Amino acid sequence: MRILISNDDGISAPGLRALHKGLATIADVVVVAPEMEKSAVGHAITIANPLRVREVTDHGRKFGWAVDGTPADCVKIAIKALMDKKPDVLVSGINHGANLATNIIYSGTVSAATEGTILGVPSIAISLCTYDRNADFSVAVKYGMEIAKMTVEKGLPRGTLLNVNVPAINEKQIKGIKVCRQSHCLFDVAFEKRSDLRGLDYYWQGGKMNVNDKDSSTDIMAIEEGYVTITPIHYDLTNHDFLEELSSWKW
Amino acid sequence: MRILISNDDGISAPGLRALHKGLATIADVVVVAPEMEKSAVGHAITIANPLRVREVTDHGRKFGWAVDGTPADCVKIAIKALMDKKPDVLVSGINHGANLATNIIYSGTVSAATEGTILGVPSIAISLCTYDRNADFSVAVKYGMEIAKMTVEKGLPRGTLLNVNVPAINEKQIKGIKVCRQSHCLFDVAFEKRSDLRGLDYYWQGGKMNVNDKDSSTDIMAIEEGYVTITPIHYDLTNHDFLEELSSWKW
Repeated sequence: MRILISNDDGISAPGLRALHKGLATIADVVVVAPEMEKSAVGHAITIANPLRVREVTDHGRKFGWAVDGTPADCVKIAIKALMDKKPDVLVSGINHGANLATNIIYSGTVSAATEGTILGVPSIAISLCTYDRNADFSVAVKYGMEIAKMTVEKGLPRGTLLNVNVPAINEKQIKGIKVCRQSHCLFDVAFEKRSDLRGLDYYWQGGKMNVNDKDSSTDIMAIEEGYVTITPIHYDLTNHDFLEELSSWKW
Repeated sequence: MRILISNDDGISAPGLRALHKGLATIADVVVVAPEMEKSAVGHAITIANPLRVREVTDHGRKFGWAVDGTPADCVKIAIKALMDKKPDVLVSGINHGANLATNIIYSGTVSAATEGTILGVPSIAISLCTYDRNADFSVAVKYGMEIAKMTVEKGLPRGTLLNVNVPAINEKQIKGIKVCRQSHCLFDVAFEKRSDLRGLDYYWQGGKMNVNDKDSSTDIMAIEEGYVTITPIHYDLTNHDFLEELSSWKW
């Protein structure tokens, strides 16, 4: 088995290093990841600037390539220029922080997996639901390995990828894997205006998730209940249910 | 009527200026757009850096704000911090170049409209299908005005926005408006490796659309046939059709 690993936290991120260590025990692993953290870059790609690629070693052994671009750039250049053969599966992560509900639209971790899917590679995004700086990725690595194996074995429908989230709890407390839909919860964004040392204004954006869609079929609720969640997602954005009504408007 | 305009080509882009001129004849218009071109940034937002906001005037009259962030940042800060009242409709564009088929996932123009929708504002993305530097935006402006008025009158389903593309042909040749789905066509990305003046490698990404899904229900085919296309899109990425089968895997 040949696995491509990418992420949005950057090539040095502990979540990626832990994932690499686990997956290397079951497959040939290639890492192509951003030089720097690229959180919340969504599905950005770099077209106005050239991309630089740097070979990275780990204890003298080849580890992969660092790219000064976005997660989607990394996957594109990995598959189209750096790797001599397509991988059997792509695993993006392990992201340091959840990618749940409507928020996945902003996720670089998910966009790497989406790009893999666009390029015909079965792809998985995996995130650990904590921002704790000393987070332990080992349980998420185990689930990532299991889900990667299952994905290669079963295959995925064209245009579909898996978005996996792992609760940051003790392994024994995890209730198992639950397949669920994205919650429709939205992030309540808020801006804080500050002044710099020259007296000039700037804004930080922050906010919190407004958890108003949490029935048991949602990713958010399943994480709260202690499940590892898998949400199948796709990049067909057409709202097919609205095509007919919209056509009936008097254009 | 109160209209918020944004885009991804930046606050000085001719497509935005033309759209502003047209919409200002039918509504109060506020522009909040990126300082610089932000094409292909997808749904990126700025969370690791603060945002700067600059008031922009046009011939001595207030024109709007330029933000040193992404299109999604512009819409967030417009609605949450800069405007005293929510707009009745958001129009993003007019983009210089098409946003069709799978490619809309990379579009900053579309992401501005998606962010408007997330924040509860009926939203439209509009693009002119040409990269001609002397492009004439006037026909696209007319359609943008018509579609904006219709959208305010009729309303849109929760979580749905309109992605509009206008063919770059003579107004009389346009066959009318056609509601259609996103084509599943994918962009065939290719990388070109070059050396800089220090002998160091870099890569440009490019490629072309592989038009292998073009029945008459697709946006790509309707544009080729001379229609203005409207595709209703949403940000619910869950592949609902695959939930049951995925649940049946032996997890």
